[in-house]
Amino acid sequence: NHNNNPSKSKGGERGKDKPGKFVLKTAKGTRDYGPVEMPVRRQVFDVIHSVFHMHGAVEIETPVFELKEVLTGKYGEDSKLIYDLEDQGGEKLSLRYDLTVPFARYVAMNKITNIKRYHVARVYRRDNPAMTRGRYREFYQCDFDIAGQYDAMLPDAECLQLVHQVLSRLDLGDFTIKINHRKILDGLFGVCGVPLEKFRPICSAVDKLDKSPWEEVRKEMVDEKGLDGEMADLIGEYVKLSGKEELIEKLKNDERLKNSKDAQAGLSDMTLLYQYCQNLGCESKVVFDMGLARGLDYYTGVIYEAVLTAGQNQGKDGPVGSVAGGGRYDNLVGMFDPKKKTVPCVGLSFGIERLFTIQEQKQRALGEKLRATQTEVFVAAACKGMVHERLKIIGLLHEAGIKTESSYKNNPKILNQLQYAEDNQIPLVVLIGESEVEAGVVKVREVTTRDETTVKREDLVTTVKQKLGTK
Amino acid sequence: NHNNNPSKSKGGERGKDKPGKFVLKTAKGTRDYGPVEMPVRRQVFDVIHSVFHMHGAVEIETPVFELKEVLTGKYGEDSKLIYDLEDQGGEKLSLRYDLTVPFARYVAMNKITNIKRYHVARVYRRDNPAMTRGRYREFYQCDFDIAGQYDAMLPDAECLQLVHQVLSRLDLGDFTIKINHRKILDGLFGVCGVPLEKFRPICSAVDKLDKSPWEEVRKEMVDEKGLDGEMADLIGEYVKLSGKEELIEKLKNDERLKNSKDAQAGLSDMTLLYQYCQNLGCESKVVFDMGLARGLDYYTGVIYEAVLTAGQNQGKDGPVGSVAGGGRYDNLVGMFDPKKKTVPCVGLSFGIERLFTIQEQKQRALGEKLRATQTEVFVAAACKGMVHERLKIIGLLHEAGIKTESSYKNNPKILNQLQYAEDNQIPLVVLIGESEVEAGVVKVREVTTRDETTVKREDLVTTVKQKLGTK
Repeated sequence: NHNNNPSKSKGGERGKDKPGKFVLKTAKGTRDYGPVEMPVRRQVFDVIHSVFHMHGAVEIETPVFELKEVLTGKYGEDSKLIYDLEDQGGEKLSLRYDLTVPFARYVAMNKITNIKRYHVARVYRRDNPAMTRGRYREFYQCDFDIAGQYDAMLPDAECLQLVHQVLSRLDLGDFTIKINHRKILDGLFGVCGVPLEKFRPICSAVDKLDKSPWEEVRKEMVDEKGLDGEMADLIGEYVKLSGKEELIEKLKNDERLKNSKDAQAGLSDMTLLYQYCQNLGCESKVVFDMGLARGLDYYTGVIYEAVLTAGQNQGKDGPVGSVAGGGRYDNLVGMFDPKKKTVPCVGLSFGIERLFTIQEQKQRALGEKLRATQTEVFVAAACKGMVHERLKIIGLLHEAGIKTESSYKNNPKILNQLQYAEDNQIPLVVLIGESEVEAGVVKVREVTTRDETTVKREDLVTTVKQKLGTK
Repeated sequence: NHNNNPSKSKGGERGKDKPGKFVLKTAKGTRDYGPVEMPVRRQVFDVIHSVFHMHGAVEIETPVFELKEVLTGKYGEDSKLIYDLEDQGGEKLSLRYDLTVPFARYVAMNKITNIKRYHVARVYRRDNPAMTRGRYREFYQCDFDIAGQYDAMLPDAECLQLVHQVLSRLDLGDFTIKINHRKILDGLFGVCGVPLEKFRPICSAVDKLDKSPWEEVRKEMVDEKGLDGEMADLIGEYVKLSGKEELIEKLKNDERLKNSKDAQAGLSDMTLLYQYCQNLGCESKVVFDMGLARGLDYYTGVIYEAVLTAGQNQGKDGPVGSVAGGGRYDNLVGMFDPKKKTVPCVGLSFGIERLFTIQEQKQRALGEKLRATQTEVFVAAACKGMVHERLKIIGLLHEAGIKTESSYKNNPKILNQLQYAEDNQIPLVVLIGESEVEAGVVKVREVTTRDETTVKREDLVTTVKQKLGTK
């Protein structure tokens, strides 16, 4: 997964096939999005934006690169995936790896004590791209975070509710929101006898459970990370567990976890979180999963991850996997403050590239096709020499706010013009010929019915607005 | 202008003051945009997007970085301002310098013969930042381009119309759209005796006329670029000229320009362009300016630049300058095609950062303040112990699509809650206390009038929607 050698991806191979020759392509792990892809993306963005606004979030925007030291020490083993900029005689810069660390930097730098913000932007990871599964080196994240010293689990519950709302509105089939708590995991590691310095590496191994079988994870713990085999087996007993409130209650009384203050604190949080989710109407999708770990170093409390569970979301290369994730990170802002003054935070990030892919598949299956443009009127000429007249009509309709196009040819063929309107699902054609110009009238044609009405030029705007309104 | 040494900008100085210490800042020449700035930016974006859609443009998106060789040889003297990524064992990459070259690469790579697209995204230039004048190293461009083999000046005129529409709708005061033609400039250089290999360097010198007096530009031509002094003086005579159609007619009969086929072709284009602008209703703002040159190498035909001329748009450090620019570039796509097959293009780019700054100044002057959130209802508790009830009401209102917030404290003070709603211009407060919960009712309070209505819980959604509808 984290192999950064030149890979066997299509981009890489094409590049290697013709050494010395300039191959026209985008950078490895990146792609263009054209008129076919963009409308779906806009649609998904709009849904997510509307939910962000539902929660009263403000928007912020940070630079695409940060000082390298801002990112240092925040991503554990994944730090090697950060893109660095060349030293061109200035500061050492890196492309952002996520939107969370820049957010924490922003909060600390501006001495903000509380904010609820969203940020939709692309992030950069020198990961091994898996284009067919929608995994790229440049991809969008849609982040929502709540910073501030607040009462337990209230912002955390809102995050789960928000994930629930977005996935419901996108209507992508059934989903589960897995939750866990770093304190429960740390408590578990403690009672299993894991040395403190191995907490994060072992946590990072547990994180791979969603992709790898336990045997492999155990191997990583023991062989790579030097954990005692028996300790690993004990951890294995717990990280298999998943359930609802009753599992939380059971673990509160577990012989080992009883001895961990951390684990008990985490389990209490879970109980309260479940109650709040019930109030907010989203608890049915929430599953407590002891095997959920999340790779990043900065989480300190509740962590969560949403996965689509419906059958149609199994891609060619396996399930689509996580479509949203996040958690509480109470110490990250403090890492940027000179006096280590911290601001507790909780937030989440949508894996929106996966959501795009699934939404595209869904629309393809339904035979839906979103329009790439919003044009309402096409101005067509029935004969030669109409170019000046066509432009005047465009000017008139634009002035009235009506979305209007015409051909860029002096004398386009009438059939081509009508075909263009049909192909692009433009509802109306305004048609002029010599006789219309002389009489000061135009024909308004409805593309689907082919009904034509002749109207005076001064009535054109009213007629068009009427016809568009009744569609 | 193009000095890339560590500058005396604030960011740079702060960094230098404390060597070895980690200074919390954004990278030089970049900044964050917070809840105060973003609403203005959204507003400006929305206006521009709506005009793009008026013209039936589709949207595309390309990666933030390109293979370095894609950018090579496209920007003339400005190439040194390109940001390179560090070689981390893969391809040589650079951050995009504009959206035009990636667009041309996209057109060539996908063998597109015609497209009208817009693209709104940030670009990167290692220029000397002038933050007070709104010039940054990372900034947005809003591009609109028309690619395709079409009849003369039709797409070009649409570009001017579009600039006219955007600037009119933004209502930023009076403006001028300067136009010129690369063939007229090249024709001029030719008849003045400039050697062919000096055309682009001399053009780049002329480009500085909007910021520097003629004497300095002449100096660059003669001292730096080795042009004969008399040739420079002759060029100087022409590049001072600006006017409307009558200047075009005059130049068609100019003794020297008569001898240049290029100049005559350019002047004919100008005449047709003016006619089309007249049809489209935007010719009053269009001024033919022989001193307009545009720095980039890739232009081949009509070039244009819009400047705000109203007095209030003079910043502390001089006039705001160009807010949009573009032109025709018929050979750029061909540079990417293995068979040199070209697709003629014309387009424009809005200097949207400047538009933001001006819009902010305008709103400040008018005392307007855009809301940072869209929240419609704040759920407040009149007494302690209401947290579960508040969450239930949030769940109810969200379910109905009503934008709702509440406090993250278990027992917030009533005055603080009402104050929050007022400060954030939230129109309605839903108020609950013990007696309301017992009776199954809630109070709906209008924040501005302080009117309160008591309604049954099952009627809450209807009441809220009614009250929001009548605002």
